[in-house]
Amino acid sequence: MTEDFVLHQQLAADTVWIADWPLSSLLLMRAERRWPWLILVPRRPGKREIADLERADRALLIEEIADATRLLQVLYDPLKVNVAALGNSVSQLHVHVIARTRDDPVWPKPIWGQLPAEPYEASELETRLAQLRHALTAGRHKG
Amino acid sequence: MTEDFVLHQQLAADTVWIADWPLSSLLLMRAERRWPWLILVPRRPGKREIADLERADRALLIEEIADATRLLQVLYDPLKVNVAALGNSVSQLHVHVIARTRDDPVWPKPIWGQLPAEPYEASELETRLAQLRHALTAGRHKG
Repeated sequence: MTEDFVLHQQLAADTVWIADWPLSSLLLMRAERRWPWLILVPRRPGKREIADLERADRALLIEEIADATRLLQVLYDPLKVNVAALGNSVSQLHVHVIARTRDDPVWPKPIWGQLPAEPYEASELETRLAQLRHALTAGRHKG
Repeated sequence: MTEDFVLHQQLAADTVWIADWPLSSLLLMRAERRWPWLILVPRRPGKREIADLERADRALLIEEIADATRLLQVLYDPLKVNVAALGNSVSQLHVHVIARTRDDPVWPKPIWGQLPAEPYEASELETRLAQLRHALTAGRHKG
């Protein structure tokens, strides 16, 4: 029997769903407003490390990382996009794709361990989601 | 004329060369002894983001990330391997692959921004390099 994929409850609480790509669900981090912050979660149950995926899924994952990067680039003109698969607290495999922008309060440091989280306000979150969904619909993230 | 690949001087100063894989040079971070910390640097000039690579090189890169992960797993039995392409300070594309072990002083936090760097002592560095080179020669990192 195949185990079904279920999004980890902490990821479900911290994010808003944007789209399902071939391998991964694309999510927006709602718990932090200062960086446009996407999370890719491969819809494969029981995976913790990138090395746990099948080879074909790994090839999909890095294409989706590239697509998420380009999505942030066309929308937010970031100084750099930070990509990270950490998973120390939430063991379900997920990849952070974060735009580091010109008004970034901790640039050039990594964002972790610098500042307490600052969630979006409701209207701001709607604006962010509308930007992302519009760019996706227009296909602006495809390489 | 093709631009030649040259390792960024900060990466050259902070690391020791271990091996050249098909796409990337595999390096050991010498500037931090508390985590077995590998760095993959694709030998492609002028790349900053994963999205800047050719698609075929991206497929190689994620296989090399998986191989580096397995190398750390067979040697150090980590709680988790952290993978990150940040590049805020050193713009040359490079990927951190870091073993978070049981005696990790900041677990489960990300390692960045927590503690001042603590470089290896010479004998300890030699031991680490010997472990890595021996495991590579034995092919223990191949999935």
